[in-house]
This record gives sequence, C-alpha cells and structure tokens, in this order.
Amino acid sequence: MKKILLSEKDMPRAWYNIQADLPNPLPPPLNPATGEPITPDMLASIFPMNLIEQEVSPERWVEIPEEVMEKLLMWRPTPLYRAYNLERFLNTPARIYFKNEGTSPPGSHKPNTAIPQAYYNREFGTKRLTTETGAGQWGSALSFACNQFGLELKIYMVRVSYNQKPYRKIMMEVWGGKCVPSPSGDTNAGRKYYEQNPEHPGSLGIAISEAIEDAVTSKDTKYSLGSVLNHVLMHQTIIGLEAQKQLETIGEYPDIVIGCAGGGSNFAGISFPFVRDKIHGREVRIVACEPASCPTMTKGPYVYDFGDTAETTPLLPMHSIGHAFVPAPIHAGGLRYHGMAPLVSRVLVDGLIEARAYNQLETFEAGLIFARTEGFIPAPETDHAIACVIEEAKRAKEEGKERVILVNWSGHGIIDLAAYDAYLSGRLEDSTLPKEELERLIKNLEKFPRPR
Amino acid sequence: MKKILLSEKDMPRAWYNIQADLPNPLPPPLNPATGEPITPDMLASIFPMNLIEQEVSPERWVEIPEEVMEKLLMWRPTPLYRAYNLERFLNTPARIYFKNEGTSPPGSHKPNTAIPQAYYNREFGTKRLTTETGAGQWGSALSFACNQFGLELKIYMVRVSYNQKPYRKIMMEVWGGKCVPSPSGDTNAGRKYYEQNPEHPGSLGIAISEAIEDAVTSKDTKYSLGSVLNHVLMHQTIIGLEAQKQLETIGEYPDIVIGCAGGGSNFAGISFPFVRDKIHGREVRIVACEPASCPTMTKGPYVYDFGDTAETTPLLPMHSIGHAFVPAPIHAGGLRYHGMAPLVSRVLVDGLIEARAYNQLETFEAGLIFARTEGFIPAPETDHAIACVIEEAKRAKEEGKERVILVNWSGHGIIDLAAYDAYLSGRLEDSTLPKEELERLIKNLEKFPRPR
Repeated sequence: MKKILLSEKDMPRAWYNIQADLPNPLPPPLNPATGEPITPDMLASIFPMNLIEQEVSPERWVEIPEEVMEKLLMWRPTPLYRAYNLERFLNTPARIYFKNEGTSPPGSHKPNTAIPQAYYNREFGTKRLTTETGAGQWGSALSFACNQFGLELKIYMVRVSYNQKPYRKIMMEVWGGKCVPSPSGDTNAGRKYYEQNPEHPGSLGIAISEAIEDAVTSKDTKYSLGSVLNHVLMHQTIIGLEAQKQLETIGEYPDIVIGCAGGGSNFAGISFPFVRDKIHGREVRIVACEPASCPTMTKGPYVYDFGDTAETTPLLPMHSIGHAFVPAPIHAGGLRYHGMAPLVSRVLVDGLIEARAYNQLETFEAGLIFARTEGFIPAPETDHAIACVIEEAKRAKEEGKERVILVNWSGHGIIDLAAYDAYLSGRLEDSTLPKEELERLIKNLEKFPRPR
Repeated sequence: MKKILLSEKDMPRAWYNIQADLPNPLPPPLNPATGEPITPDMLASIFPMNLIEQEVSPERWVEIPEEVMEKLLMWRPTPLYRAYNLERFLNTPARIYFKNEGTSPPGSHKPNTAIPQAYYNREFGTKRLTTETGAGQWGSALSFACNQFGLELKIYMVRVSYNQKPYRKIMMEVWGGKCVPSPSGDTNAGRKYYEQNPEHPGSLGIAISEAIEDAVTSKDTKYSLGSVLNHVLMHQTIIGLEAQKQLETIGEYPDIVIGCAGGGSNFAGISFPFVRDKIHGREVRIVACEPASCPTMTKGPYVYDFGDTAETTPLLPMHSIGHAFVPAPIHAGGLRYHGMAPLVSRVLVDGLIEARAYNQLETFEAGLIFARTEGFIPAPETDHAIACVIEEAKRAKEEGKERVILVNWSGHGIIDLAAYDAYLSGRLEDSTLPKEELERLIKNLEKFPRPR
C-alpha cells in the first residue's frame, strides 16, 4: 500500500501531554526582573486562561473539543505514505514512511495548533488576536483558523519577508487576516524603528514586541504564538498519534523517527508519542534536524534565555544560541529561531532524543531527490528532515538492516519555489555560523541562570 | 462525515470510454486539405500508436495498467468532501460534495492523464516528449509524469505567462522538464516571430506549432496534449468513477454534477460516468461552466474547426468561437481555449449536458466564499464551477429542495494568489467578449463544414 489512511472514527480524541511522563520535570519560566518562577496569572494579559491552563497542565491526555475536531477534519487525518520510489532510488532495505502534513489548506502542520488556539480564544471571549510571522507559514495558518472561528487577526510580518514573499501575505488576506510589514508605525515598539527608516528590514524580535504590545493595549485582544510553548507542542501531537495508529494497522513500528526543528513544534508533534514509548522502555531512536547555520541543539547550551530579541518575554529554559543571534538568510525561514522549545530541550538533555545539523545545500539536494522520486515538493524546512532520512536509509543499506524510518513531512514547498530555482541555477550557498561568532553568542549567555 | 475516503483496493481498475455509449457517434476529425476523415496512421508522426488506438477505441472499459495505477496511487483516490461550512454559510438544504483534485503533486487534475500518456509513450519507445503550456498547469503535470517514467520533456510556454508565472516554470524544472518561452528561437514556427521581436508575448497557437514541429523533426520524440482529445478525457474519468463509489458508500447520488470547462477534460472526468447513467435513464443534471469572455459552448456553433491558431491540426467537430479568437487575459488561463472537446461538444448537442457562462468577478467572489468557508483556496478555473454550485445551492433554498450537488474541485489556487490579490484590492475587472467581435468570429466559421 502506498497511502495508509485512517478513518475519521479512528482519529485520536485527545492530545498527548508529555509533561505527565517526563523523567525530570520541566523547569518553570522565570521572571527576568526577579528571577522567580512565572505564575499563570502573570501571563493572563497576553494569553486566555484556558490556554494558560493547558500550558501548565500535568494531565497526560487533554480531550480535543468537538468543535476543534470538526475543523481538524477539514484536512485530517493526514495520509501516511510509504516512500517506495525513494527507497528504490536509494536501493535501501529501509522502509520509509512520511506523514504528509502538506495537505492542510495553508500547506503545513501549523493549523494543528492555530485551530485550537483560535477556538479556545473564542471560548474565552477574545474577539481579536495578534501575532508575528517570519516566512509566513504561521501567519497564514492563524489567519485560516481565525477565519473559521470568526476572530479578527492582525499579523506583524517581518518586512524583508513581507516584500520577498507576497504570496504568503495574500494568503493571509484571502482568509481575512490583516497583515502589515514590521516594524510598522502602529505600535510604540515598531514606531521607533519605522520612523528612523520606513524600509527597516525588521526582525522576528521586533515583530513579537509589536504583536504583544498590540494585544496588551487593545480591547478584547490576545496574543498567539505558533511554536515553542508547551500547549502548542501538545496540539501538534495529533501528528504522531495518528502516525502510530496508521503504522499499527500495517503492523509496523519505527526504528527511527525524524523531524526538522525550528521552534520545535512539528518535531514534537511527530515524536512525543514515541518519546513516551521510549520512556516506558521501547527501543526507538528519535532525531531532530536543524540548520548548521542555526545550531541551537547541536551547539547551544541549555540555559535560561529570553524568547525574543527585545527581552520582553519571561526567561525560558531551553537550548539557545542567544536571543541576540541574527540568523543567516537561509530559505528555511521556519528554522531560524535562536532557541528550542523547553519541552524538546528537556528531552534532549535527558538523552531521549538526538540532534543533528545540516547545511543548506545538502538539504536542497535531499529535497530535490524527494521531489523527483515521491513527486511532492517539500518545504525548505522539511528538506532538513529528508536529508536525515536519506542519511539513515544509506546507513541501513551499508549495514544491511531492514530499518523502519518515520519522518514528518511538515509542509509543501509550492510557495518556496524561488528557493529551488536558486538551488537549481547554482546561486544558492551554504551559510554557516562562524566559530568566533558562535563563541561570542555562547559567552553572552554566561550571565543567565541555568535550569536545574 | 467530512471526508469520504476510498481505499486503494476499491480504486476503479478501468477508465470509462463514453464512445461506447453515445446515442450519436462522434464525427471523425477531417483532413483540412481533402475534407476526408483522418485515419489513425496519419497521426502516427506525432502520437504513439497505443494512444492513437485509445483515441479511436470503441471499448467501454479500458484497463488501467498496473504501473500507471501505482503512480496514480501517489495521490489517488482523492478525497470527496462534504462542504458543511459552505452549506451553513448559504443556509441551503442542498448537500454539497466536492472532489478535491488539488491533492496531486502539481496541484490539479492534469496528472490523471499526464501519467498514462508518459507511460504509454515509454512503452512505445518514445524517449522524449514535447508540449505547450499556457498558464503552466499542464506543463508542470507532464513534467512530473515524465520524471516518473524517465522521459525527457521540452515545454513551450507562452512567453507572457512564462514571465508572469515564474513559479510554474520553476515547478517544471524541479521535476526536470526543460521550459522555454514561446515563440522561441528553437523552431522554424517560433523563429519567424522571435526574430522580429525577441519579447513577442506569444500565444497558445504558436506554442502548439512549435511543440508539434519539434516532435515531428526530432529523434524518438512525440507530442502530448493535455485536453480536448478523446483519450485525454477518458483518462480523467477516474475522477467521476471514484466519486460514484464514494457517494455510493454513503448512499448518495447527485441531482446535479458540476465542472468548469476549458478544453473539457476535468469536466468530462467528473461527469462522463454520470452522463452514462443519464443515457441509461437515470435522472441527473450535468452542468459545464465556462467564462463569459470565452463562451464556446454557450455562444459558439457546433462546427469543424482547427484545434490551433496556426491551422496545423486536423479539423475537429466541436463547439467553437473560431481558432482566430484572441482570448482576454482573464486569470482562469486554463479556460481560454477557443474550442471545446469533441466528446463534450457531442453530448452538449445531444442535450445530455447543459452549459453556463460566468463573469470573472462573480467567479472570484465565489472562490473567496469557498476559501473562507471550506478553507482550501481554489484555482481561478475552479472558481467558475463554484459560482455554479452557489447558484444551484441558492436555488435549492428558494425551492426548498434537498438537492445533492457534486462538483469537481479541479485544482488549488496557491500559485494564482496574485489573481486573488487583484480581486481583493479592487483591481480586477470583468472582461466580456463584445457582441460585434463574437458575431465576426462566428461569421468566420461559416466557411467550415458542419459535423453531422
């Protein structure tokens, strides 16, 4: 069978909360001013209380509300594919399965959390959301979700991306979201940059500050984040839970589970249900793939750091290369975050998962091999996971082992075709983080507390 | 249930050939020089004999080869969706089902025929294919298919589209096809325009002439067409055959079947299995939707006309507004063809289907309603079918009837977002065909023979 489907009645009915199974509990976020743990009520000005409760919940299973399920069924369960063509091309004894999260309306895994976030906000009484977006995957997913639940949305999009990726902006507008280039003249945080230079290229840090300021100062408005936080990762576990059921129907269990990781949400989504199995004694390897130019897991320390450049968030316990990090303009825009989700960082520290870094050119080479065997064109972010799949499939061949590989195919690359054009025409380059720069960034983190 | 799935084992195993059931046989194509019917061997310089046999086959069912089936399973069976959100929005008693053909790697129904055409060519010994493409849907689908079967491909893309739609061109190149703007300097047919003006905007007529000349004059090379011909329409019937099975599993049968029609292949794909039922006495209405600016079925006579502007093809019996027709630059690039497939024209003449024309603005209004209810963003071509769905759903409401509506959602509009931007910002206009121009075009057709 090429595609392993799941019927609607077999859909998982609850999200999996890995906090219930962690061998070592997650250290709390800290108030940067006092060094004391953040309490839920401190977050109440930016998030609705029902999501804050999810953020700190110790419950293993959180039921998916009926109305959320109805929306998820617009594209879920997503198909699990056996990559026969890729296997043949690599002449590998490995059996490769990819979970196609590119079938959602915005084309990635992001709506898995955008939908419940919009739902819980509407339930709470929120009328309007704000968010930031870099490359635009998150902004378009949240626009889709807000449209489904009748919420207004304002998206602060990093100006350089706003200008380079007009299709993403249009997609947000098709679903009714209002998208402005950041820094904008609409907030104090943005205005100070905007007035100096109306063409300021912007940064995710500035955009976050603008979106939070807007949420805090506007009526009935909350802020929404597309990765990093515990509840976001939990919403994504539907990917791995579905994949487990799909593999079960054909009597398979993976030897290796692979995902790319920027903030960590799609990786957590595919892998946390398997991390749970591993905690309970099952043998399975789990690999998170990141860009060599943004090596948070492979090079960054485990430290308390700010979530944003502007130092407006609580301190989060995570693998980080420092919030002052300025990422290289690689095409995998979703993997350029300076930190890693606290939950992913925690399981990495505890040795439950491993991390690997890939260079831009090898990821596009892998993506092109995938497109030319399995047909579907992957997003540049997804190409990182595919590079790892190919590496593992080749290893299985060398070792003569029939390994089962599961990968999260986190999104399609239809709106990123310009990046493939750059690769095909030889204009694409590897970008690395110079050793001295990395050392400087890590040194800067020395003054921050270490999570216990 | 939101999505009605079909398992691989329940896939249709044969295409449906409507020629076996036509109340009146299809008139043969004619040699324009002699007025005599074209014989299969006359087509042998441009098409492989196995496809020519399909073109003229009287067999009702043509088995789908195992290797073709394996490739179709990369994205088929496609899901059939119940459009609950759209129904609620329209407050209609109608039950609306859409067949999502946007899930293929190139994003439309086109690979349903690109895959078998590439397969039969490879079986025949063809090493290389040529084709033309306008907006690029067909070129990218054939590039995907040729990649799967190891064939070389050269695509002549109308220059104005080549410049306006860089993403489509890149998509072709990702799958290994070579795409050049037409008129090119590579053929006699193109050179005469190209040398006068290297920035000549081109036309589908010139691009067809270039692709045919290349096929006829190159070693081991054949030509491939993405619509209009009998075998192309037959390959698309897998859409309707799947939809019939899917509706059967939930005990539904459509009152109305709707598709948009440019050359006619996606419309034939969804509708011909239902036209067969109708021929055998079942009550069902079948509607083909076209642009008001290219009204081949609603305004054009049933006549023998050339398939291309350059008058290089046989004369085909079809509804046409004349091969000299210069279409308005509407965004539904796939619906700008001057003629209609002979098989679709035949069943229209015989009263088995009906045709309706829609203006550009009302189609985008419909597409936006769809995107804001069902989430998925439709192609501008598909918007024509959705305009008809909304019209019929409103009528069902007025009449208080629980009608079942089936529509072919022929492709996604992710690469056409610029068109939605134009609509949203009020820059889009209706373009109509002036009455005098239409009369002139129809008058030009008076000298051509009439099919019997």
